[in-house]
Amino acid sequence: METFVVAVDLGGTQVRSAAITAGGQISARTVIPTPVQEGPQAVIAAVIEAAGKVIDQGQASRPAAIGLGAPGPVDPQTGTIFFPPNLPGWGERSIMDPVRQAFQCPVFVGNDANVAALGEQRFGAGGGVAHLVYVTVSTGIGGGIVSDGRLLTGRRGFAAEIGHQTLVPDGPLCGCGQPGHLEALAAGPAIARMAREGIADGGSSSLTDLGKDLDQLTAADVAQAAASGDELSIQVYRRAGFYIGLGLTNLIHILEPELILIGGGVTRAGALLFDPIRQTVDERVMSDIFRVIKILPAALGEDVGLFGAAALALVGVEQG
Amino acid sequence: METFVVAVDLGGTQVRSAAITAGGQISARTVIPTPVQEGPQAVIAAVIEAAGKVIDQGQASRPAAIGLGAPGPVDPQTGTIFFPPNLPGWGERSIMDPVRQAFQCPVFVGNDANVAALGEQRFGAGGGVAHLVYVTVSTGIGGGIVSDGRLLTGRRGFAAEIGHQTLVPDGPLCGCGQPGHLEALAAGPAIARMAREGIADGGSSSLTDLGKDLDQLTAADVAQAAASGDELSIQVYRRAGFYIGLGLTNLIHILEPELILIGGGVTRAGALLFDPIRQTVDERVMSDIFRVIKILPAALGEDVGLFGAAALALVGVEQG
Repeated sequence: METFVVAVDLGGTQVRSAAITAGGQISARTVIPTPVQEGPQAVIAAVIEAAGKVIDQGQASRPAAIGLGAPGPVDPQTGTIFFPPNLPGWGERSIMDPVRQAFQCPVFVGNDANVAALGEQRFGAGGGVAHLVYVTVSTGIGGGIVSDGRLLTGRRGFAAEIGHQTLVPDGPLCGCGQPGHLEALAAGPAIARMAREGIADGGSSSLTDLGKDLDQLTAADVAQAAASGDELSIQVYRRAGFYIGLGLTNLIHILEPELILIGGGVTRAGALLFDPIRQTVDERVMSDIFRVIKILPAALGEDVGLFGAAALALVGVEQG
Repeated sequence: METFVVAVDLGGTQVRSAAITAGGQISARTVIPTPVQEGPQAVIAAVIEAAGKVIDQGQASRPAAIGLGAPGPVDPQTGTIFFPPNLPGWGERSIMDPVRQAFQCPVFVGNDANVAALGEQRFGAGGGVAHLVYVTVSTGIGGGIVSDGRLLTGRRGFAAEIGHQTLVPDGPLCGCGQPGHLEALAAGPAIARMAREGIADGGSSSLTDLGKDLDQLTAADVAQAAASGDELSIQVYRRAGFYIGLGLTNLIHILEPELILIGGGVTRAGALLFDPIRQTVDERVMSDIFRVIKILPAALGEDVGLFGAAALALVGVEQG
């Protein structure tokens, strides 16, 4: 029987779980709500329930390991999750110990955006390359770094905060409280904000015809308007793409990956976002030797967290 | 007899070489001029001459390996150095093959700033920590990254271009031709330029009493004036330190090292530079979890290239 692992994607609203083979086949999957309001013990119980369900459903044998992607900073050694923003009351607590106790098998834990890089590398658009950066652009900007085939975690698992690079020293405030980070310049809320500001500054835009309070505008609204030819919205995406391109150029100079994959909800805008990103990188790299690095859409969509957790577990098993 | 390696630091003006034991003892050393004007073959011959001298002088036995630090981008697999700015006419050429042929032992080649990180980690101020960033601030800003005990080289050996991160999208032009890089905002020439600009803008400074053409001002002049209380010079260093601090904060968020070491001629300014660097990092990190990262002066001074090349060779030998 082919090796399989159980992958758990612990999110702020859902706990998703799947039994996944070493070849990337999903043989069972489940989703249950995250009982955030009931506190950490209930969340841990939900993780154990979700993992147990896919083991019972899909497989007679036991999984080789359990991989778990979690929000917030994660110490991969201890499985401690530190103050995850989406799990209020969690504090500093290990998810590894209770899950290991429940299933008596190895458990590997990583930050969800970090392990997504492993998932794309192994099962998605990464094609197994050894040097890869994965970036997710949605409400925030996060990511993961694979260097020489291994996840770059930093000393305690806090590395790859890709969205928190300063690109404009006195720029708009980021959710983290610091000014001018990539996330504050180009994530979904920044796209909506730039559109709002453009309209407030007297710009003409079909966005005002939506009958929506401007405060309710989303990046998706702006993308739709841009697709219909709204010039203000096109410029907003160009600006977001410019900043993402600058941030990627920094990562290219620091990490020299072979490939950069970009996922997350905001990438549904397609060429509207990818064109200015690629143009900026092409203009801003310091030398032709960096101009060969490919920038492509990620492939795994909503399942990237599951495949990432599975890849983490499989790498853990392979490395003994 | 203790293992020893031969280290070669190939620079634009000198080829330095030493026989260094696994424990970091130098048993022989030599320096010869780099015959830059005579072309690549003469430079290669000089490298072989310098290595041969320390073997003859210091040791009866053969070295376990030869480590070589070279300017410019280096492919660690092939030992190819790509268009090194200080070795005109070099083109794309391997230094590994001819040296290996001459000595019939393993040869390891790395970018000089990259291997310096390994040297500081193993023999300098690094104390053997597994996650370390080394930054050198002199005419340019370069560096090296050690992640999980290994040199982060990127796909082809071009990573760790630490000075080429954009911090001000429309900032002053860098030597590489791109705007607003850390190097253009805070390396030696930038410090001299900021002082010049401050004086040209009507600022009063004791630098005008040096009897020097303002175009000839150096970062060392500015440091000396600052040490004597010249306010304009102090502000210039504060500004350079601010930008270095921003760049280090980006690296902290991306790499989460345990320790950052700063070397290079400009660090002779001491607290004048280190105080604003540390203050900026302390203010700009996104979370307390990053506030434990230490920022210290590098320890190996002018020998960092030799110790780096030795560390590269020793790691190579140890990893088989």
